[in-house]
Amino acid sequence: MKAYRELTKQEREAELAACRAEFEEFKAKGLKLDMSRGKPGEDQLDLSQGMLGPLPGYTSPGGVDCRNYGGLEGIKEVKDIFSEILELRPEEVIVGGNSSLSLMYDNVAANMLHGAHGGAPWSKQGDVKFLCPVPGYDRHFSICEYLGVGMIPVPMTPDGPDMDTVEKLAATDPLIKGIWCVPVFSNPDGCVYSDETVLRFAGMKTAADDFRIYWDNAYCVHQFEGGRPVIPNIVRECEKAGHPHRPYVFASFSKVSFSGAGMAAMASSESNCEHIRQRLSMQTIGPDKLNHLRHYYFFKDSKGVYAHMEKMAELVRPKFKAVLDTLESGLGGLEVGKWNSPKGGYFVSFDAPDGCAKRTVALCKEAGVVMTGAGATYPYGKDPRDSNIRIAPTYPSVEQLTTAMQVFCLAIRIAALEQLTMNS
Amino acid sequence: MKAYRELTKQEREAELAACRAEFEEFKAKGLKLDMSRGKPGEDQLDLSQGMLGPLPGYTSPGGVDCRNYGGLEGIKEVKDIFSEILELRPEEVIVGGNSSLSLMYDNVAANMLHGAHGGAPWSKQGDVKFLCPVPGYDRHFSICEYLGVGMIPVPMTPDGPDMDTVEKLAATDPLIKGIWCVPVFSNPDGCVYSDETVLRFAGMKTAADDFRIYWDNAYCVHQFEGGRPVIPNIVRECEKAGHPHRPYVFASFSKVSFSGAGMAAMASSESNCEHIRQRLSMQTIGPDKLNHLRHYYFFKDSKGVYAHMEKMAELVRPKFKAVLDTLESGLGGLEVGKWNSPKGGYFVSFDAPDGCAKRTVALCKEAGVVMTGAGATYPYGKDPRDSNIRIAPTYPSVEQLTTAMQVFCLAIRIAALEQLTMNS
Repeated sequence: MKAYRELTKQEREAELAACRAEFEEFKAKGLKLDMSRGKPGEDQLDLSQGMLGPLPGYTSPGGVDCRNYGGLEGIKEVKDIFSEILELRPEEVIVGGNSSLSLMYDNVAANMLHGAHGGAPWSKQGDVKFLCPVPGYDRHFSICEYLGVGMIPVPMTPDGPDMDTVEKLAATDPLIKGIWCVPVFSNPDGCVYSDETVLRFAGMKTAADDFRIYWDNAYCVHQFEGGRPVIPNIVRECEKAGHPHRPYVFASFSKVSFSGAGMAAMASSESNCEHIRQRLSMQTIGPDKLNHLRHYYFFKDSKGVYAHMEKMAELVRPKFKAVLDTLESGLGGLEVGKWNSPKGGYFVSFDAPDGCAKRTVALCKEAGVVMTGAGATYPYGKDPRDSNIRIAPTYPSVEQLTTAMQVFCLAIRIAALEQLTMNS
Repeated sequence: MKAYRELTKQEREAELAACRAEFEEFKAKGLKLDMSRGKPGEDQLDLSQGMLGPLPGYTSPGGVDCRNYGGLEGIKEVKDIFSEILELRPEEVIVGGNSSLSLMYDNVAANMLHGAHGGAPWSKQGDVKFLCPVPGYDRHFSICEYLGVGMIPVPMTPDGPDMDTVEKLAATDPLIKGIWCVPVFSNPDGCVYSDETVLRFAGMKTAADDFRIYWDNAYCVHQFEGGRPVIPNIVRECEKAGHPHRPYVFASFSKVSFSGAGMAAMASSESNCEHIRQRLSMQTIGPDKLNHLRHYYFFKDSKGVYAHMEKMAELVRPKFKAVLDTLESGLGGLEVGKWNSPKGGYFVSFDAPDGCAKRTVALCKEAGVVMTGAGATYPYGKDPRDSNIRIAPTYPSVEQLTTAMQVFCLAIRIAALEQLTMNS
């Protein structure tokens, strides 16, 4: 098939009619498929089924009665697991409850009201802002929006955020207090930050003394093709560069064990962790240590986690393959979209022709296929080009995925052809 | 024994010498007893041991796969349990994670930055303040201190906070945005708010439209003498009085099942809950539904909770009795302190002679008995009379408790005699 924009009027009309006819057939099937969120499939959850058996004991190997109060930052045994995965000292790690999103939200809220590492509360310094690499994770942006933090979009590149822009903005405006980063298998692009990107983050000058990098390392063990990506350690590099308190690292077991019954952790300089501990002592009675113990008994150490994630990769890989194969067979050569082929993470990022994302998502919905809302990957839900769509392959079965992606491809083709018709 | 203040100089000196001699004997024992926090004893935790067995299934009776994302406010089955206990509709209840303290902290932080129920953010309205009934719970006060909320102490009475003062202050200052209340078995006084107090809270005029009552009903099922106290329902009463969004109710299973692995809930008007749900959707992936399910299987319904708490009462009652008996035998007639005899909750509140609390706690520490710090029951840790000491009877054994309270009584006697000597 040749590129759509090269079709004659007649060819285009014929193609649009054909697409619409095929689309009507899908609509008639009454599909109900949800590809809107990065939810693990049931087969992935089954891998952790061993955690639902009886707890072998309630006292941790370190001697803590996990049924009672105490232990603001998690039991030693799971701090060790996160320390190994993040390659940090246990003193640099705090293990929390079941949600890394909560750790991030709390951190922004506390810095707004109390200040970062002894600094003045952000909310008293003026209208503070975060840099937001786009496309990005909608819930990062929602945190800012809810808490009154302004957002400045920064374009993503295959190597991470456009660092020229990041450096320029951070160096000039003291009200820019942070940036959201997903350094490994970014959401939704699936890119892995280059060494240079990480080093530039660590070394860059910022106009704000209390500038913070929110390093959401959600997918650091989620490769499904090739080896686990190793990038420079942001905590170590910031320390070396003389900005030890700059990074807050976040990690999560939501897609390792159970989504909602996992564990989340944050990491930073020892001194930053000490400030965070002070907050935690007022904010919470601490995380669920029995659930920590459950994780310890099941995984034992980082090797146990890596072995588990190998099994996970076997389940996830065919789903991504189904999405990518269907995109290729449905859209190859038509030049009506670009997409990535990630080696890990949870998403395929699709760039439709400008102005076609909302129409595509609406068409999918008509046919019973729920996609993440167009614009969701941009601050305030506003994609200026109306182009990016996030595809989440993990929850449906391969068969369902293939059907859903066939619908998606038809929707893209219809939207693109409609637009060509309007613009011709 | 006659009252200490009626002793002659000679009698007083002899008594002080005798107390000190006895105290030295205790010091020689090298005690290590901790009565500083309201921690359940191991026997109490053992009552919930059945929750550590295998989970019978991961799908809730309502059909939710509790291993995956979804369900911001808890599974239906535990919402029902809290609804029954709080006598509210399920739509008025949100079940959270393991810590009601976190729910309270989050609520204050969000109202500071985002505003309450569509109102302007508190932090943008000026230097906002909370009313703080004293003596009260130190962690309530810490939340205010950390988040930059000023605190105005209000005296407690046997019927709850002094409502004349509360009404007067709340009616005149629009920057007074809230009040901390523990309506049933208050911390530390153990008092139960009278019907009149509750109705006055519901009906009072407040200068701030966005005034909120933080109704921390932590001990609503924790009676160990007599029946479960029933007080007017603050949510219903506020609704009737035309202030439906005024109360935030909090409840916790931290001292019902496991401390740190329990469940916490909040409740308010449906409309307030809707605002809170919007926040939760950005803040968290939701509570641990597998732990909710564990609680459902173990307790089934509110009747199961009440039956469980009857067993709990049997374990707790003798400990409070040991504390009260030792206080009576050690201090009766000396007129060097007043204390309450609560019928539920977690604390005995002791008022030493003015100026004696710090000295008493320091003496106890010398003898290896750790009490809650003097002043902890007041905002900023400052008890203006240096009088109140919170005693937490649940964690030590009856034998340990008796010893610790013997030390405490001697410390009080020494501190009081020292003061009489200084003032004479």
